[in-house]
Amino acid sequence: MKEFTAELPVTGRKINSAEIISVGTELLLGQTLNTNARDLSLELSDLGISCFYQAVVGDNHERLEEVLRQSLDRADLVITTGGLGPTEDDITMEISARIAGTELTHSKEAEGWIRDFFALRGREPADNNWKQAHLPVMAKILYNSVGTAPGALYQLNQEGTKKYLAVLPGPPAEMNQMFKQQLKPWLKICTDESLYHVYLRTIGLGESGLTAKLTDIIHTQSEISIAPYASVGEVMLRLSLMAPQQLSPKEVEQRFRPVIEQIESRVGEYIYSRDNRTLSGVVLDLLVEKQATVGFAESCTAGLVSAEITKSPGASQAFAGSIVSYSNELKESLLGVSSEIIKSEGAVSEASALAMAAGARSLLGVDYAVSITGIAGPDGSSKEKPVGTVWIGLADAAGTLAEHFLIGGDRSHIRKIATLTALDFLRKRLLKII
Amino acid sequence: MKEFTAELPVTGRKINSAEIISVGTELLLGQTLNTNARDLSLELSDLGISCFYQAVVGDNHERLEEVLRQSLDRADLVITTGGLGPTEDDITMEISARIAGTELTHSKEAEGWIRDFFALRGREPADNNWKQAHLPVMAKILYNSVGTAPGALYQLNQEGTKKYLAVLPGPPAEMNQMFKQQLKPWLKICTDESLYHVYLRTIGLGESGLTAKLTDIIHTQSEISIAPYASVGEVMLRLSLMAPQQLSPKEVEQRFRPVIEQIESRVGEYIYSRDNRTLSGVVLDLLVEKQATVGFAESCTAGLVSAEITKSPGASQAFAGSIVSYSNELKESLLGVSSEIIKSEGAVSEASALAMAAGARSLLGVDYAVSITGIAGPDGSSKEKPVGTVWIGLADAAGTLAEHFLIGGDRSHIRKIATLTALDFLRKRLLKII
Repeated sequence: MKEFTAELPVTGRKINSAEIISVGTELLLGQTLNTNARDLSLELSDLGISCFYQAVVGDNHERLEEVLRQSLDRADLVITTGGLGPTEDDITMEISARIAGTELTHSKEAEGWIRDFFALRGREPADNNWKQAHLPVMAKILYNSVGTAPGALYQLNQEGTKKYLAVLPGPPAEMNQMFKQQLKPWLKICTDESLYHVYLRTIGLGESGLTAKLTDIIHTQSEISIAPYASVGEVMLRLSLMAPQQLSPKEVEQRFRPVIEQIESRVGEYIYSRDNRTLSGVVLDLLVEKQATVGFAESCTAGLVSAEITKSPGASQAFAGSIVSYSNELKESLLGVSSEIIKSEGAVSEASALAMAAGARSLLGVDYAVSITGIAGPDGSSKEKPVGTVWIGLADAAGTLAEHFLIGGDRSHIRKIATLTALDFLRKRLLKII
Repeated sequence: MKEFTAELPVTGRKINSAEIISVGTELLLGQTLNTNARDLSLELSDLGISCFYQAVVGDNHERLEEVLRQSLDRADLVITTGGLGPTEDDITMEISARIAGTELTHSKEAEGWIRDFFALRGREPADNNWKQAHLPVMAKILYNSVGTAPGALYQLNQEGTKKYLAVLPGPPAEMNQMFKQQLKPWLKICTDESLYHVYLRTIGLGESGLTAKLTDIIHTQSEISIAPYASVGEVMLRLSLMAPQQLSPKEVEQRFRPVIEQIESRVGEYIYSRDNRTLSGVVLDLLVEKQATVGFAESCTAGLVSAEITKSPGASQAFAGSIVSYSNELKESLLGVSSEIIKSEGAVSEASALAMAAGARSLLGVDYAVSITGIAGPDGSSKEKPVGTVWIGLADAAGTLAEHFLIGGDRSHIRKIATLTALDFLRKRLLKII
């Protein structure tokens, strides 16, 4: 086992690699989603610091020490989150000091911070809060502007090599503030390159379909790496470039441009955003640009499309309202779908989608009306119309059109994909692709 | 390095401990939140299987193998998620087979699954999709009902001890389905105690308010532990009991009953569900019980309430439809809110909420109509009506009523809380609490 010696002052050398260790039984029990690891990974990646491993471990002396030592062996910097609370279970500060070969001592400065924290809120510290003023002698103490648990940054001498161990609190608001205000400025000094990104968001091709069309482009890049990320209903292409921190936005843009142009020439029609905007945001912008209004006639999505387009505060510029016609009676009475259509073709049919769109356009008095009618399941399907059958209709000044889609997955998934499909249908119409 | 021999059939021995390894560069880069680790941890915890470590590692041969071997050394069961995609980067199946000492071979069965998957969607598989039919010879292959990547369950003989390695896909919908449908039933055979839960879901009291009322009850339990979990707009009390699997539902109920009665005597009015149903599910059941129909007039929530109540497949029994009246014009033309009200009191007012509810009840022909109008922000507020001002109205056979709420947080939070508040308003009316 390699031994460490803690050093002061913490100076900082070039940091290339880091690992994140999340400490907390609540994570192992699945009670908490590990947003800290995600947030720190994003920050490290943008600083050009590679992170090859992350770990989660409980509030247990042996296991925490084992994981910490393994990570310090591999990486230049190890960041822990969690286990700095006031209770007996919270052992991260104690273990980190033990590994660093230093001791915890009562910090007058931290005592003052804790006193101020409670005074500001008109409350009294509990007895166990003073444990949080028990901090390592040989470490830079990190102020917590959101809570009572200070953090620590150790510089460790390991057989001549300098390693760094940052100990941060677990509550995400405290962790993020401490990282941004105190660790990040120091890390910037310890790195000279940053990772720059461009996000191309696509819809309509699966991950395999998209990468199949781009294989050669993906593999012939030297400076820029291209990675596809599939999420519900869409695939995002992330282009990354590692380059000096002082690059201007224009220089960054110039380096990305040739690759973006290559990708666009192959799959341009599937790309709905080049700047990481959401599909509903893009559709909204297109509508506002055209000074056009929109409304929906929703059946199986039952309000999801309307809720999606109103996520952006400016939605009222283009979105007037919608009819959620869940029952067939309302499809008839409000949207004017004829009972013949419902009887002969069914509520989930091309004729019904067309009539719903036309009816909504007239009732809502909008330029564009989009209808969604489908079988989200698990009930209501037939051999001809399996679960996942969805018709999207659209009515505008030029007329009406509709398209059939078959969507896999469960009820919730079908409704989500139908929502995105309806918005993409509108996007294509606004761009005159359909 | 210990070697493994893969065995068939997979039988299953008692499993006490498990580790979760999430594979994917996107996790290390912070692009994806690791919901898989959370979901699996919850499931394992409910099965009484301890999880002491979790890891995240990228799509890298050496590192993945290293992490996998370390976990297999410590735990009875190792579950991986991710890295089963069709691209070259996806190496989890290959590495797992190498560790197990078996080979990948083309599976006719899996080829059929992939063919069916695309046929059902009217699409063609890409060339690289066939890679996903390349599966280990000595393992139980797990069917993917949501995507194209099959999983695998290995039984490994490690110097006489049996270990298990389950390889699941990364997309959460695929992972969860495969776990629940195939791994969980098998794991139940491999465990003899289970953690039993009762979930009391409350709305209307914050976490600290609720626990303050229950402190002594929480701390005097021996057999049953009580933990509060706050989520958006509600607090769930989770009661847990570790007991033999063969306990009958009645025996389980008897052990929980005294504690539940104690809790109900203190905070009964805030508990909306005793069986972990959602608020919308509870409301739906109350409506079906009364054979009553419902519809909504949504402004600031713009479809969220309707989307929420239709999450349950049976929603059509009670939910007819809604009017999303986002613009003031539609509040007037469709719901009959007078232009005087809009002008003098504003669209966000008691008068407007009452008129919207009455208008929706008549237009939609329903027994109960609930209206929601508010300022979700960030724009549109005034000194008298700050961001978060929400009016909920209700119309039924007995008349109309409305209540004012002030909700904190950002736009998305205000819309979510307004949605729950509207449903709880209806719940209280159906229970004659208001």
